[in-house]
Amino acid sequence: MSADTPVFLAACRREPVPYTPIWIMRQAGRYLPEYREVRAKVSFETLTRTPELAAEVTLQPLRRFALDAAILFSDIMTPLQGMGIDLTFEPGPVVRAPIRTRSAVEALRTLEPERDVPFVLESIRLIRAAAPRGVPLIGFAGGPFTLFCYLVGGRPSKEFEAARAFLYAEPEAATALLDRLADAMAAYLAAQAAAGAQALMLFESWGGLLAPPQFERFALRAARRTLAALRGCSVPLIYYLNQGSALLSQLAPMEADVIGLDWRTPLGTARRILGPDKAVQGNLDPAALFAPPEVLAAEAERVLREAGGAPGHIFNLGHGIWPHADPEAVARLVDVVHERSARRTGT
Amino acid sequence: MSADTPVFLAACRREPVPYTPIWIMRQAGRYLPEYREVRAKVSFETLTRTPELAAEVTLQPLRRFALDAAILFSDIMTPLQGMGIDLTFEPGPVVRAPIRTRSAVEALRTLEPERDVPFVLESIRLIRAAAPRGVPLIGFAGGPFTLFCYLVGGRPSKEFEAARAFLYAEPEAATALLDRLADAMAAYLAAQAAAGAQALMLFESWGGLLAPPQFERFALRAARRTLAALRGCSVPLIYYLNQGSALLSQLAPMEADVIGLDWRTPLGTARRILGPDKAVQGNLDPAALFAPPEVLAAEAERVLREAGGAPGHIFNLGHGIWPHADPEAVARLVDVVHERSARRTGT
Repeated sequence: MSADTPVFLAACRREPVPYTPIWIMRQAGRYLPEYREVRAKVSFETLTRTPELAAEVTLQPLRRFALDAAILFSDIMTPLQGMGIDLTFEPGPVVRAPIRTRSAVEALRTLEPERDVPFVLESIRLIRAAAPRGVPLIGFAGGPFTLFCYLVGGRPSKEFEAARAFLYAEPEAATALLDRLADAMAAYLAAQAAAGAQALMLFESWGGLLAPPQFERFALRAARRTLAALRGCSVPLIYYLNQGSALLSQLAPMEADVIGLDWRTPLGTARRILGPDKAVQGNLDPAALFAPPEVLAAEAERVLREAGGAPGHIFNLGHGIWPHADPEAVARLVDVVHERSARRTGT
Repeated sequence: MSADTPVFLAACRREPVPYTPIWIMRQAGRYLPEYREVRAKVSFETLTRTPELAAEVTLQPLRRFALDAAILFSDIMTPLQGMGIDLTFEPGPVVRAPIRTRSAVEALRTLEPERDVPFVLESIRLIRAAAPRGVPLIGFAGGPFTLFCYLVGGRPSKEFEAARAFLYAEPEAATALLDRLADAMAAYLAAQAAAGAQALMLFESWGGLLAPPQFERFALRAARRTLAALRGCSVPLIYYLNQGSALLSQLAPMEADVIGLDWRTPLGTARRILGPDKAVQGNLDPAALFAPPEVLAAEAERVLREAGGAPGHIFNLGHGIWPHADPEAVARLVDVVHERSARRTGT
């Protein structure tokens, strides 16, 4: 890699790196006392809509830990408010009028990021101005099917029955809604890149609820529509899929540079199935942060070993960090990943 | 098969059958108006503890549909009350004093089914006396790790963080608790078989939350302990695992006759990995019941095709039927599975 390419971006492109980079899903979050201090003063929604505060909490974990990337503090539902969705956080997202008809789909406004979510773009500019050199900023959006789950269901749910039934009962209306969401998220992510985001990530938290044919027809098709529209952005694209163990072979042809996976899919299996053109991101069990230090180190080492080496691997948890995790364990994890992967790469 | 062996039992043993048998997880449940009528008069807990009522709701779906098996109406948490756990249903199970120390594990009473859950055994006797000939009764218990999730966590949760953290933080205490649960469920299932249950099923709803090494060390080890203790019972043993796509190869050596799988694991893949000594049970997406009739039929046909033929396949949903499913769709599904599988077997 060129000497001034950040390690995280080089790893996304499967270029040689001196060590395995690491960042952590929800690294700006409730497990940090300084985050809880900010949240004690403002609501979650205010935090996402106030650039100075969103930038502050985005930067908080970088002051504590030698993380290799920052990720914008926001919520996957935030841009939907810009599309005319009446949404509250209680604390999970609740949609006052769930979308279950073709006419409700047609009534959605087209997202225009500069008009509808200027505060997100301003957050990105503030973070870029203040982030340490060598620590790129990741912008993100929800996967179209994951957003669909909340919009059709109306509120968080374990099984998202309403959304999954809607795919079978009204496949045309479902496809129309997924297309609208895919296009909106493409515009949203492109605007984030234009504002300074140096990598873009699509979070598909609920795609793994679908059987393979439904995943292909609905979730994957929509995600690929988003990613295809971002081909012109010259930043790495990351697709994270939760519960995706049965769906790996379907991800191989995706237009993403990096596939992020949960803690249940061994990364060696994933790399074999995904092929040499994809980097992988993950996938330590978030529960492992509760292990004694030597067990945590052994688990991190196992993930590094399964990933098969530093180029093309970005270390992360397999899912967001839990609110009651100990920041000291995170500090140890970051050090262990850097030290042991540097030893493995022989530098 | 012998002419008087019920089709369901023959399929469990991978013997030739004239058609693919079908039953449905939670077939006695809220989607049936006659069930809701009973529930309007008594609490869920009273229903599980009153043999006449438990037998009545167990038999209700058999009056409507040509199902090939009955399953005892009960709850996986029911026997834990007999072990001294203070438990309420709100409606999900809530454990007043979650178990998080070695001493709390030691304080658990040993389950003695005849003393602690006589009403379950009496329910089984009543059902057996009234069930149609050729429709065997399945007894069941929760998988040790699934019970562990509720006991350590205290209440239902999406991620069961407390239980999963406990495995890393206190592996010895966790193992002790899993062993106690494994032994209790073995005693519970053996008593059900003695009372007349003709097949026994272990529901591992949350085992698929674990990464493969943790699954092996904790959930699978405990489940195998239960199944090994049942070797003497001459009834088929079924192990159902939810979210198990990444764990299939670990299930191959299990002492179970049948592996039940959720809707995300293609049955063809499963049979290839599990080998010829296992029957498979499943795995239509519960959401497919909301499709138009011709789509539902095509989806059922797809499952039959993936399963690769009638011997060694028991048709089921991949998870429990949803409360707002239409009983008419269930009637259509049962007919379609019987007709199309009979055509496929050429009888």
